[in-house]
Amino acid sequence: MANYTIRFGILGCADIARKVSRAILLSQNATLYAVGSRSIDKARKFAAENGFPATAKVYGSYEEVLDDPNVDAVYVPLPTCLHIKWAVLVAQKKKHVLCEKPVGLNVKEVDVILEACESNGVQFMDGTMWMHHPRTAKMREFLSDPQQFGELKTVNTCFTFAADRNFLENDIRVKPDLDALGALGDVGWYCIRGILWAADFELPKSVIALRNPVFNKAGVIISCGASLSWEDGKVASFHCSFLSNLTMDLTAVGTKGTLHLHDFIIPFEEKKASFVSAVESGFKELVTGWEPKPSEHTVMTDIPQEALMVKEFSRLVASIKNEGSKPEKKWPTLSRKTTLVLDAVKASIEKGFEAVEIVS
Amino acid sequence: MANYTIRFGILGCADIARKVSRAILLSQNATLYAVGSRSIDKARKFAAENGFPATAKVYGSYEEVLDDPNVDAVYVPLPTCLHIKWAVLVAQKKKHVLCEKPVGLNVKEVDVILEACESNGVQFMDGTMWMHHPRTAKMREFLSDPQQFGELKTVNTCFTFAADRNFLENDIRVKPDLDALGALGDVGWYCIRGILWAADFELPKSVIALRNPVFNKAGVIISCGASLSWEDGKVASFHCSFLSNLTMDLTAVGTKGTLHLHDFIIPFEEKKASFVSAVESGFKELVTGWEPKPSEHTVMTDIPQEALMVKEFSRLVASIKNEGSKPEKKWPTLSRKTTLVLDAVKASIEKGFEAVEIVS
Repeated sequence: MANYTIRFGILGCADIARKVSRAILLSQNATLYAVGSRSIDKARKFAAENGFPATAKVYGSYEEVLDDPNVDAVYVPLPTCLHIKWAVLVAQKKKHVLCEKPVGLNVKEVDVILEACESNGVQFMDGTMWMHHPRTAKMREFLSDPQQFGELKTVNTCFTFAADRNFLENDIRVKPDLDALGALGDVGWYCIRGILWAADFELPKSVIALRNPVFNKAGVIISCGASLSWEDGKVASFHCSFLSNLTMDLTAVGTKGTLHLHDFIIPFEEKKASFVSAVESGFKELVTGWEPKPSEHTVMTDIPQEALMVKEFSRLVASIKNEGSKPEKKWPTLSRKTTLVLDAVKASIEKGFEAVEIVS
Repeated sequence: MANYTIRFGILGCADIARKVSRAILLSQNATLYAVGSRSIDKARKFAAENGFPATAKVYGSYEEVLDDPNVDAVYVPLPTCLHIKWAVLVAQKKKHVLCEKPVGLNVKEVDVILEACESNGVQFMDGTMWMHHPRTAKMREFLSDPQQFGELKTVNTCFTFAADRNFLENDIRVKPDLDALGALGDVGWYCIRGILWAADFELPKSVIALRNPVFNKAGVIISCGASLSWEDGKVASFHCSFLSNLTMDLTAVGTKGTLHLHDFIIPFEEKKASFVSAVESGFKELVTGWEPKPSEHTVMTDIPQEALMVKEFSRLVASIKNEGSKPEKKWPTLSRKTTLVLDAVKASIEKGFEAVEIVS
């Protein structure tokens, strides 16, 4: 097993890197090996506060993390606009890339990153944690069951949170030179991923942004939505915002079944998560109630979804390093598809809510 | 109290009239007085099977119900295309009108009906039962609370059911000469009413139908959706369909709170109904869970929502008859607003998904 412990380097000391550091500690097949920050003091403080072992390397630059021959994989939690530079450099140094979402500012940037990973034979995965929760697999089973769920007809997702004044003025997610995609790149990423997930990653044919997107003074989206439509008649819609109470809904309706959950990205609790499913729902005589009623299903997990993410990423990296496997294409493909839809939403907003065709 | 018992006449023997007959029996201030059908045998059978007292009048025509001087109020569960004729005749006979939804094929028809009611001094109410559930009042309190819910930002509603082959071929709701509005008039009515209710009945500025509406061979809508937008930035969307598993969602998100329910039109159970609310939701340290979590609230009701509807309608009628009150304008106003939005959705579909402005 020692051979399979993947040594992580982390670029920067972002808040989300604290959560992922803990995930690396919990993952069982990865270790916190190095952290680099433009300020070595910040890096030292980060390492001390986030469970790095005494032997961990603390660097005063990102480059030193990349140049350390013992680093197997690099977690990139930098602002979106820096991903293209740093993710590509990581790949060129033959280190595997775990990259925060959104992966790039547009699909062109994502393609540059994914190309760099592919040509250097390294694994790419984005930081969409909920994909790795066992609840997600359980829900996938339900959606894939022709007897229980049937054919998918519609999906609705919503991810909003009420950012405070400090966030709305200072967070990187409202800055055009940092996370320039704003709410669409941050919370909208999950809404889009949730829809694509429910559609088994079949891309929609076209996307139309909904009216009333909200921009901040710098022109960054802080609230928006879109409707998506597929060739076969499926439809979806989502709403994402920094201006409303924390809400995290996914509803998928098929010809035979319905899936509901209100915490699809971050489960209400860390070790257990639920979803509600309904199959061939109907009414009682005289429509005085439902028969059968929807039912709740709970899925337990020993380690949290972000640790399962690190574990799966590290398993793939170990397999490449030790067994000569090829990188798993599923993960970069999902990042790219999510970005394609995100680009289309942005383009539709820019074109005054015109329909934008998705070309993959 | 005897003076206040409103004598109902029912036109036709529609399925929904069975439910409303029971509601009249349960209402405590109304009584089943007469039923008329083009077939007197059907009327007799209906009266016998639906708890009409032995003294009830059974007529072989609708006209006879209208001509019976003892009938105070008439319930009109006829196909939508017949509402304008019969609801107007009922009003002209100075009888109060409880009319199934959708009220008319368009707002022009609705205005003719409402005008007839107003000029004849009779109460009008449509048959949107969930408006009368005490849960609805409780949820309204929540949405109106600036500390708990704040300012409404977005609403999403969904009402679908999986119609069987017989329904899709023979039900009045798929026939262009009967309920010509199809799924939009039937299930879409509730989606629109739910959105307007959450918006405290402020009409949206514009409506855009979503792509991929489905029509049957006769050109009747059997699945569609729309997005709505308000001057102040609020947005909403809905999806309605006869082609997906029974689903009945309403989600309203405000700056401070969130409201969720999955049975907003027909509660899962008749005597108790729940909703989930969340106030100033946030995350635990490291975003490993929610704090506080949403909470469920249960509201009990002695008599079902449709009986509460009849009770409220009959209370208003009694007040007009016995105290000389004016008809309550709230109910016709809500019917009209719902129809205005419905018309805009239909117009947007017809115009190839253009934005349609709402002019009230």
